Amino acid sequence: MALKLTILGCGSATPTSQRNPTAQVLNVHERFFLIDCGEGTQMQMAKFRVKGHRINHIFISHLHGDHYLGLMGYLSSLHLVGRTAMMHIYCPEPLQEILQTQWKHSGTELKFPITYHFLEPGENIILETNSLIVKSFPLTHRIPCWGFRFDEAPRSRNIKKEKIKQYNIPIESIREIREGADFTTEKGEVITNDELTHVGTPPKSYAFCSDTIYDPSVAKYVKGVDLLYHESTFMNNLAKRAEQTFHTTTSQAAEIAKKAQVEKLMIGHYSSRYKQTDELLKESQAVFENTIAAYDGLTVEI
Amino acid sequence: MALKLTILGCGSATPTSQRNPTAQVLNVHERFFLIDCGEGTQMQMAKFRVKGHRINHIFISHLHGDHYLGLMGYLSSLHLVGRTAMMHIYCPEPLQEILQTQWKHSGTELKFPITYHFLEPGENIILETNSLIVKSFPLTHRIPCWGFRFDEAPRSRNIKKEKIKQYNIPIESIREIREGADFTTEKGEVITNDELTHVGTPPKSYAFCSDTIYDPSVAKYVKGVDLLYHESTFMNNLAKRAEQTFHTTTSQAAEIAKKAQVEKLMIGHYSSRYKQTDELLKESQAVFENTIAAYDGLTVEI
Repeated sequence: MALKLTILGCGSATPTSQRNPTAQVLNVHERFFLIDCGEGTQMQMAKFRVKGHRINHIFISHLHGDHYLGLMGYLSSLHLVGRTAMMHIYCPEPLQEILQTQWKHSGTELKFPITYHFLEPGENIILETNSLIVKSFPLTHRIPCWGFRFDEAPRSRNIKKEKIKQYNIPIESIREIREGADFTTEKGEVITNDELTHVGTPPKSYAFCSDTIYDPSVAKYVKGVDLLYHESTFMNNLAKRAEQTFHTTTSQAAEIAKKAQVEKLMIGHYSSRYKQTDELLKESQAVFENTIAAYDGLTVEI
Repeated sequence: MALKLTILGCGSATPTSQRNPTAQVLNVHERFFLIDCGEGTQMQMAKFRVKGHRINHIFISHLHGDHYLGLMGYLSSLHLVGRTAMMHIYCPEPLQEILQTQWKHSGTELKFPITYHFLEPGENIILETNSLIVKSFPLTHRIPCWGFRFDEAPRSRNIKKEKIKQYNIPIESIREIREGADFTTEKGEVITNDELTHVGTPPKSYAFCSDTIYDPSVAKYVKGVDLLYHESTFMNNLAKRAEQTFHTTTSQAAEIAKKAQVEKLMIGHYSSRYKQTDELLKESQAVFENTIAAYDGLTVEI
């Protein structure tokens, strides 16, 4: 029942032979969520055996090409294989015009419906299911840009099997005990929930921050997540360039992770000037030790 | 001084692990012409060492995504590396709206100018330089679609070096002799051009036809070219499907080649159902023997 994140692309604007532009797939109990969709994402899905047809929710952070240019091709391929299921797209509002302009001129009537959920200022819950809550929150980039936070819904407590027998607990009481209720036996004895259950697996959480200038106030939105993906376009010696282009350095990403007390940090969205990521990783780890470096094809369990 | 064609993508709508969507680069004496630009073209350029920054002319056949979705990313990358030179795009008119809608919403002011040359009905010369003439001509597809024919300008005759000495030909006469003039010696003797020169290398020609229903009338536009690229989306047993989707089969492409008396045929734009192209090639060769099968990364001298 783990969450799994697969990196389909962790490059920045200019793709390189090793790195596609941004795209990731989050697997939450075999439900798949696509986060950004740079050019070539559908090819990366094939390469890394991600089942693109099982995705029903797409999150687009902003309208720079390296974060959405693969969307038309990916959606067109779903159309061609006969998809009929609803697709939900959480995105800046103009994306709808961008997609519809292209379908108009290609004479395409999509075989499946799309529901657009336009991102709004501030922090907002944009998707809530039995097992997951997704929030969008503001990042500061050259154009409107959002981060996304995925929180598993709190899991029920686990009932201790031997207690069911011991107190002769009927099936119909089990659900409320798992949700925290005490149990009263036939003799009127109250058994506390603490005795009957132990804590379930803690819910997991993931947050995605790309692209953004270094902004410590982002920490509050990603507070305590198990995994934080934060862009680290530049190394520290290019901090000025990072600021000018509204991007973040390795150490700055790590500062956000530290301030937000996250469990683990993953850096990515590297400038194409960096062929290797060892030095970037070192700089981040000097500030926040539990950092890993994204690469195309990486899958991590959260 | 050869023409060289490099295939960057020869798949059809759905990319496969072996085939990107359509894109080709024609090298005419080290001037580079991009023909169609499917998703991932800029990555294919990097992979096959095509110098994308040297391209100044782009030809887009039609507005199905597998023929132009790589354009935004490719042009954006040129912008990011600081290109300032004019780019000429020969395309269906709505492409301008598609590109400009996206730049508007990404807040991009391109660092280089673009001149759009909108394709028009019928056969038209769309580009003419000292060394090359490019024509567009109509194909029949589900939406407006064009083919392109590239003809090298006729080359001058080559002067025989020994004749310069023998008749004491001054430098200022050489150009007109190469263009066909006779020469009159100091003594008044007329030396015919035939004696002074031999025929230069015949001009080469290339034609591109994708996507189109089988249409024998296309032969007149591609008459006698040295190399014809013609789509062969399906094998013959799917002729009906080819017709329904406005595509061509292997034998039909070869029929066009035969009728047009071209030197060589290259088939491509294969349906993703074909993992290998041996059988497609056999079907074409049965009708037109001098056929080759495109693959991503193939470069041929014309």
